[in-house]
Amino acid sequence: MLEIISEHACFGGIQRFYRHDSSQIGLDMRFSVFLPPQAAHAPVPALFYLAGLTCTEETFMIKAGAQRVAAELGLALVAPDTSPRGAKVDGESESWDFGVGASFYLDATEPKWARHYRMYSYIHELRQLVVRALPLDARRLGIFGHSMGGHGALTMALKRPDMFSSVSAFAPIAAPSRCPWGIKAFSGYLGADKAAWAEYDASLLMAQAHTPFPNGILIDQGLGDKFLAEQLYPEAFEAACKTAAQPLALRRHAGYDHGYYFIQTFVEDHLRFHARNLTA
Amino acid sequence: MLEIISEHACFGGIQRFYRHDSSQIGLDMRFSVFLPPQAAHAPVPALFYLAGLTCTEETFMIKAGAQRVAAELGLALVAPDTSPRGAKVDGESESWDFGVGASFYLDATEPKWARHYRMYSYIHELRQLVVRALPLDARRLGIFGHSMGGHGALTMALKRPDMFSSVSAFAPIAAPSRCPWGIKAFSGYLGADKAAWAEYDASLLMAQAHTPFPNGILIDQGLGDKFLAEQLYPEAFEAACKTAAQPLALRRHAGYDHGYYFIQTFVEDHLRFHARNLTA
Repeated sequence: MLEIISEHACFGGIQRFYRHDSSQIGLDMRFSVFLPPQAAHAPVPALFYLAGLTCTEETFMIKAGAQRVAAELGLALVAPDTSPRGAKVDGESESWDFGVGASFYLDATEPKWARHYRMYSYIHELRQLVVRALPLDARRLGIFGHSMGGHGALTMALKRPDMFSSVSAFAPIAAPSRCPWGIKAFSGYLGADKAAWAEYDASLLMAQAHTPFPNGILIDQGLGDKFLAEQLYPEAFEAACKTAAQPLALRRHAGYDHGYYFIQTFVEDHLRFHARNLTA
Repeated sequence: MLEIISEHACFGGIQRFYRHDSSQIGLDMRFSVFLPPQAAHAPVPALFYLAGLTCTEETFMIKAGAQRVAAELGLALVAPDTSPRGAKVDGESESWDFGVGASFYLDATEPKWARHYRMYSYIHELRQLVVRALPLDARRLGIFGHSMGGHGALTMALKRPDMFSSVSAFAPIAAPSRCPWGIKAFSGYLGADKAAWAEYDASLLMAQAHTPFPNGILIDQGLGDKFLAEQLYPEAFEAACKTAAQPLALRRHAGYDHGYYFIQTFVEDHLRFHARNLTA
């Protein structure tokens, strides 16, 4: 059951916010969709965007300035929320980097979290839902994201390149098994077994692959990002791409930080990158 | 005393947030500035943006997607807050459309409000402050705004076309003396004397003028705007422009509402309009 919460005309297309009852999460979930004008005539390729810690389904749509280029290129944008809401797990709202707003896009296995914190499977549920309900071309889907959502996008794509055939990221948490945010999240959601962690670590997944994205991967990283040294490890992902013979454009930008003023500066390049991959 | 709260690289320029001690308001005030890359070399023209009810100095900068075009055109953007904060006037936070976040950009005369609610004079204080402290060209200033801020921009420009030589608006409250928001605000801040109200009513001011802006005025209005019929009265301003022999491009857009998805769609046209006026 898909309910429209609100809709707004935008660049000749339509910006919508939806609520639905998720079977994977076991709770109501919200997401947003931008449909470009071209979607009125035929199914269009779609880009899933996964947001970072503390964000919601609204963040990217209102802060990134992406709809202009999406309308030009005929790309739909789909942005899920960043976690379950209302799961009422004890302590889920105590930290900004764990629990509510901080799902890390994985399926939790620790008993306390395993019932509702299933964002990995939820993204696939949402993918199936939107390609069924909206004029989207299921064979032309890409994924990108920011920070925790950059980690989410890279891992989702590496686990299912058959589903997401184009991937990019802004300042991703690129090696979560070795950074404080990732260690906290993986310990909490997955427990102590590091073999389970490796299933959600983009750098470890990439090192096992062989050129999964022949058209390349695009990553933008600000060098003024205060989280870069301790949390992000793009160099680990870069090394893994080399091992995997995976073409990577890792662009390092002097002065840019971790926020949406950085993202809005480079979002056009990401949309054009995906449009080339999805219409090739 | 001008204090930088934060700064962010954006489209090759810089997005800053400032705090300062305002003599007109008698309190600390915040504002934001986008400096395009061109400002590193020479003073640039600047556009003041006045936001609507409940907004802050951050709203336009993070939601409108304006910096891309401002960087291309070499325009600075300056956005004040929408009201004093911390004035502690009894009841100032009880309504979303009066008091905090709802100054209506006037100098209050009712005793309860007159000490701090002086946003009309504050905008001029801010204008003088930023042209002194930043690489802005004091002879090339424009002003625009949204809703309550569209009212503010039109009235500021009509009262001082020598200071603001280019003006535009998104869905302005164009005849506040006759709409519920305006009547509530003007009664509360200015008292019962309607002669005082006329000093802050764009349609009444325009009807007394004679072609104050020979290059024209640009207004965009969505026809799906739920506030249009009761609160905005663009047709009153249109009639006043006719009386004043003032060229006006009042563009009515089917389907667009009152929010920032509407504004981001048309903001590029406004920046190009101002750039033409300010560099002619």
